[in-house]
Amino acid sequence: MSTAVFYHAGCPVCVEAEQVFLNFLDEKKVQPEIVHLGEQRSKIADAEKVGVKSVPAIVVDGVVYHINYGASLEDVKKG
Amino acid sequence: MSTAVFYHAGCPVCVEAEQVFLNFLDEKKVQPEIVHLGEQRSKIADAEKVGVKSVPAIVVDGVVYHINYGASLEDVKKG
Repeated sequence: MSTAVFYHAGCPVCVEAEQVFLNFLDEKKVQPEIVHLGEQRSKIADAEKVGVKSVPAIVVDGVVYHINYGASLEDVKKG
Repeated sequence: MSTAVFYHAGCPVCVEAEQVFLNFLDEKKVQPEIVHLGEQRSKIADAEKVGVKSVPAIVVDGVVYHINYGASLEDVKKG
């Protein structure tokens, strides 16, 4: 089972991407976790460490995929 | 059934993203088509029309998601 962490921050681009990507993932192959960095601010450091530069982003087995562009991680940090 | 068109151009970023994203898609929910714009150059106009700016990109039900950045569509046009 692979792991996928979907990082977002509540922005419209994030929400739209989340709905589409998570809906189409095969739950038998990948277990998605959703992290809202605006609400779970303690996870911002984790996101930064793994290489997330902007949201929305999905980290699959440790590899970051930035999907379109909602906001930079720097903006998320500023709240 | 939704449709997903994965546009790429053979770049390493494209190939890597293709393997991960297509592997995890639920084939019961979405039918992916893979278009290599370097080989299927007649499809470049389709990609441009739907809003693809760079590859790799996946177009799900007409909405474009740019995944990371391999090459611009302008570069793909130049061959």
